[in-house]
This record gives sequence, C-alpha cells and structure tokens, in this order.
Amino acid sequence: MDASFPAESNVPGALSPRIHPDRSITFTVKAPEARSLQLAGGDGLGQGPFPMTRGADGTWSVTTPPAVPGFHYYWFVLDGLSVNDPGSETYFGYGKETSGIEVPEAGANFYALANVPHGEVRARWYHSQVTGDWRRALVYTPPRYDADPGVRYPVLILQHGAGENETGWTRQGRAQFILDNLIAAGKAKPMIVVMDCGYAVRAGASTPTFGAHASRQEVEAAFLAFEDVIIRDLIPTIDSDYRTVPDRDHRAMAGLSMGGMETLFVALHHLDQVAYIGSFSGPFLPGINTGTPGAQFDPRSAYEGAFAKPAEFNRRVRLLWLGVGSAESQFRAGISGAARALQASGVRLVYFESAATAHEWQTWRRDLNDFAPRLFH
Amino acid sequence: MDASFPAESNVPGALSPRIHPDRSITFTVKAPEARSLQLAGGDGLGQGPFPMTRGADGTWSVTTPPAVPGFHYYWFVLDGLSVNDPGSETYFGYGKETSGIEVPEAGANFYALANVPHGEVRARWYHSQVTGDWRRALVYTPPRYDADPGVRYPVLILQHGAGENETGWTRQGRAQFILDNLIAAGKAKPMIVVMDCGYAVRAGASTPTFGAHASRQEVEAAFLAFEDVIIRDLIPTIDSDYRTVPDRDHRAMAGLSMGGMETLFVALHHLDQVAYIGSFSGPFLPGINTGTPGAQFDPRSAYEGAFAKPAEFNRRVRLLWLGVGSAESQFRAGISGAARALQASGVRLVYFESAATAHEWQTWRRDLNDFAPRLFH
Repeated sequence: MDASFPAESNVPGALSPRIHPDRSITFTVKAPEARSLQLAGGDGLGQGPFPMTRGADGTWSVTTPPAVPGFHYYWFVLDGLSVNDPGSETYFGYGKETSGIEVPEAGANFYALANVPHGEVRARWYHSQVTGDWRRALVYTPPRYDADPGVRYPVLILQHGAGENETGWTRQGRAQFILDNLIAAGKAKPMIVVMDCGYAVRAGASTPTFGAHASRQEVEAAFLAFEDVIIRDLIPTIDSDYRTVPDRDHRAMAGLSMGGMETLFVALHHLDQVAYIGSFSGPFLPGINTGTPGAQFDPRSAYEGAFAKPAEFNRRVRLLWLGVGSAESQFRAGISGAARALQASGVRLVYFESAATAHEWQTWRRDLNDFAPRLFH
Repeated sequence: MDASFPAESNVPGALSPRIHPDRSITFTVKAPEARSLQLAGGDGLGQGPFPMTRGADGTWSVTTPPAVPGFHYYWFVLDGLSVNDPGSETYFGYGKETSGIEVPEAGANFYALANVPHGEVRARWYHSQVTGDWRRALVYTPPRYDADPGVRYPVLILQHGAGENETGWTRQGRAQFILDNLIAAGKAKPMIVVMDCGYAVRAGASTPTFGAHASRQEVEAAFLAFEDVIIRDLIPTIDSDYRTVPDRDHRAMAGLSMGGMETLFVALHHLDQVAYIGSFSGPFLPGINTGTPGAQFDPRSAYEGAFAKPAEFNRRVRLLWLGVGSAESQFRAGISGAARALQASGVRLVYFESAATAHEWQTWRRDLNDFAPRLFH
C-alpha cells in the first residue's frame, strides 16, 4: 500500500506533490507536449535539478531523495522556463511568486496550528514620510489582545530575507503559530510582532541597484532608507496604533539573512530604541559588514565600532543572538567566526546552530523558537 | 515614446506585462526553448487564447486588444501546459494560484489605496465544531476600531466565488479599500466585514464532489455544511471576539457567483439572523436554485417558498440586492429574469447592472460599492 500523502502546502484537492514516509517526494504533472521537464528548488530537496520522466499518457514525474524537513521553495523547468507547480501554493521568494512544499519533521510541533489560543495577523497600511508611499506591515497581536484592553505589550520587529516580503514570516515561517504555541506553554511573553517589507526607496529617488554583487555603498544606501522607515515611520505608527510599551527595553528586532543584516545595521545605530537583537543566518560579507573592507569580521571596526567597547555593549544590549544552520556551507564559517570573534573580544551573545538545516525556513523557524523565549525578561 | 507602464499587479521590478494608454497589453517572456506559447485568461482580456510570437533572442510576446478595465486572471500556455507569468502576482482562482493583471479604469478611484484612514484586515483562526478543523477567516475592522473601544459595529459576511478562497475579496476585490473610501466619504456606515472560505466538509465526512455538473443534492450537501459553519461557528465567533451589534438588523450577508448562491441559501434559511442580503452575479441554475427543477426561476417555489409571501418578506428583509455585469452572457438573462419575476410577484429588491463588465472582479467591486452604502440604516 502506498503510504504517501499530499503535502500540507498543496492546493485543496491536489494529489501531487506527495510525500513518502522516508520524506522522499514524488512530483507529477501532466504535460504531453513538453520536451523536457526538471524539478529544482531549495537546498533541502537535494542536489537538483532532477530530470522528470515522461509516461505514456504524457504525465511526467520524479521522486526525489529523502528531503530535509521543513519548507522548501521549488519550481519546474519546463522546456527551459522556470514555472510554478499548479498543485502547490505559492510563496513570495526569489522576487516572485514561487511554489513551496512543506515537509513534516517528526516530533516537531512547535510551528503547528495547534489547539491553543491564537493571535491575529493584521494587515496594517501606514503612510511613510520617508518613501512618500503607503506601505503594508503585518502585525501579530497575541491571544487576548482585544479581550484584555488594559494590557500593554512589548514589540518584536521581525524581517524576511532578500527576494521575500512581509508575508514570509507568517506564510513560510509560521511565526504566528510559533508564538501562539510558545505563549500557550508559558515559554514566551505575549508580544506584538511587526513584519514589514524590507525594501524602501526614498521619495523622489530612483530604485537602487542592489543584488548579489552590490557594493558597500549600494547596500548602505538601501539599508539607510529602510532604517529611516523603521525609525521614523514604523515604530511611531506601531506605538501610536497598538498597545505597546514604547521603550527600548520592550523592543526587539530580528531578521533572517538580509533581514539579519538589516537588523544589525538598524539596531546598532539605535541602541536607544532597541535592546534585543537577533540575526538569523545574517551573513557577514567581506567589504559590507565585517568592518575591514575585504577582510574577515573585525569586532573593533565592524558597524562603526558598535562592538568596540564590550563592557558598555553588554550593559546596554540585553540580548545579542546569532544563529546559522549547520548545513549553510556558504555562511556558517562567517557567522560562527564572527560569533567567536565577538565572544573573544568580550561581547556577550547567544550563538545557535540549527542541526542539519540549510539557508531555508526550517532554520529560521527554529531560530525564532529559541529567540522569542529570551525576550523581555 | 512608449507610454506603456508595468501593471500594478506586477511583482516589484517586473517590466512585463505592460499596459498601453488604450488598455491594450503587451505580455513578454523569455523562453528560448519553448515550441509554442499562448496567452489566455479572463473574459475582459478579449477572445483568447492569443498566440505569442518568438523573437530572435528567444523572447516571446503578444499585444492584446484593449482590455476591459479591472482585474483579470490570466496564464501562459507553454507547450500545452497552463503556467503562471513570473512577472505577476498570483491570486487564488480556479482552485490554484493564478496570475492576475490589474487594468486601471479611468476616473474610477473607489477601490484605490487612497489617502484616507485605513482599517485593518485581520487573519483570525477559529475552530469549527462542524468540520472539526481550524479555519481561517479574514476580518476587516474599520478605521478607529481600536481607537474607539466603546463603539460596536454591524457585520457584513462577504463571500468569494467558486475556485477562490477567503483571500479573494481583499486581494482581487480590494474590499478593504472600497470600505475605507466609502467610510471616509461618509457614504457607508463603519462596519466589520467577515470573509470566510466558502467550502466546508463535515467532520468525518468524505470530500463531496461539487463541480459544474453537480446535482441539486450535491450542491445542497455542500451548502448545508457551509451554512452550519456560518451559523453555528462563524457568527458566534465574530460576535464573541469583535465588538459587534449581535442582532439581525445589524448583520448582512453577500457574495459573488457561488458566494451569491450561498448567501441566498444561508440567509433565506435564517432570516432571524440576517436582514440584508446581496447576491453579486449569483446564478439561478435550473434544477439547483430556481424552485422548479429544470425550469426558470419561480418566485413561489424557489428557496422553499422564502419569497412566496411578498408582503411578509418585504417586512422582514431590509434589503434584497441582485446584481450582474451587462457582459455576463452566461448569467445575465437568468439573474435579470429572476429579479423581474420577484418584482412582479411583489418582492422589493434592488437590481444593479455593472456596465460592460463580465463575470469578473470589476463587476463585484462595483457591486460592493453600490451595496455597502445601503446597509444598516
């Protein structure tokens, strides 16, 4: 008997993709006129692209090796063009809507939609003086936010990665369920989580070029505009419109990958506003945020000397949290090296490695699950 | 000079599709290895599919005739397989994630993200006793909902069409901006709008077959499960968790297409709970909801005689609103015929035709813009 089952990320009624008990996955699509079809996607699916095989009725299929648990982006390559799988939900990644698949992890319930009280995720439109536009943030309010109108809450600003947007943490990341479960178990304080879109262009400015080969100046220009949005527009909006405790001791910021870089960039400029800082798989890129151009991370010069006086840093910053997946071959050495260098210089921090996960969302779900309980004590 | 511009529905940075001043649209995609590419989509794009032409560099393109204003689903047919355009956002329609394009309508600002106070759209998870599952509703709360904690609001339950889900009214429909604009102009009362997913399977039951050729019994079974969710689970949840006025005179229900059929089905069974009723392009299908099997709409027998006593109906129902797009060749005769028959029998109703729009979202945006101001007086 076939024990495979449709992925939770399939659209209702779609029978493909199907996950087998060993976490191998069978992808099927009917395309009688196609000449070639491949499956490609995130690291945890294995070393693709995987050629698909045409059956007699024009149905193409492939079964992958056992996948890493968690969420993986993927796509078909149909006669050379990358296209979505009509059987799966899409998620904003790689700068566009991309198919994704949810592979269960045995025993991992921390991001499940469980039988506990649930908060809300609110779409909030706000006007930015910095960009001149209306922007949309997603705001998680914890269970009982409306029922207990006398209670005020601390705030975590939580950012997505490059190519993603403000929907990433609730759709791919399931941040709302992670918080619901932590709060229900008494492991995390009830908090408001604000997820904004990590891009900003100043009113009247042209869209900057900002890609894999961006210069330090280009990255800084992009980050400075976003920093201004956070400090001048977003934080005042949240403190005005929600029942926050509007001070630094009740404000945290974290993000993944580019969002981790943004978090360090913004928070280290504004330690008067943020006391808890998390960088999830945030790379330290020589010439960008390592301090000395072209060199490894330097705790004395990085971030304009923010870490240069460890005792003062430790007094002001209630939590510095750095994490990476152990399978992130491209970033692990840089992040663990920066963490070691900071610790050697006397900076207090938490370093966390997600076992056997890559630069993907299962790493960041685990990061949030470790990070959030450490906040606001 | 080329006066074309990327559609508002393009993903950030995507240069295609591009809309020309006459509302013709150029779609471009690079697919050097493709053998055939076509563009297909909603009625308002014109009589497709439109063959695309390959350029020397492997870029395929087509320019459509001038499109009808509004939102249109569309897709590429790449060597026989329907796939999304990587340049556009996707929207849940046809039971899967489907590309969409927003074509501006000159002078129509009623659904714009304007410089007015904005409500929130809240994702609310709730447990259904009927289905045994957690479900997600989207809840629009009007501007100042949090700021004026002493105010209670009427509720509009607003449903999507077949193949869509609870995201349709805010993503394709822009219902939140329509309400924001109406409320800002003083044209509609501030209200809560609840958008649920219009499918339900009873706990323990198998998923019913329900398609274009469903029988009356199959439609009824599907609608009855959804009706129970609305009446037993959703309305009590909303009245418990939001500051509603929890009575029939402050509760409306409306929906589009299948959602219009569901609205008549649910509301006419529960006039003790709902006083305002809107069916937007909700078909009257012989044998399904016309009263006499196989026949045209019969006001005496339809909906178990709900309209059979017009004076009593008019006394109880504060608004019955039926609408259709004038270009809906498949449904216009049936809906306008039902409206005429009801009026001839003495039932008071509003009948609205959206000029020159088809079975598409521009019709339903206009419907909501006409319907909402008539509520809760």
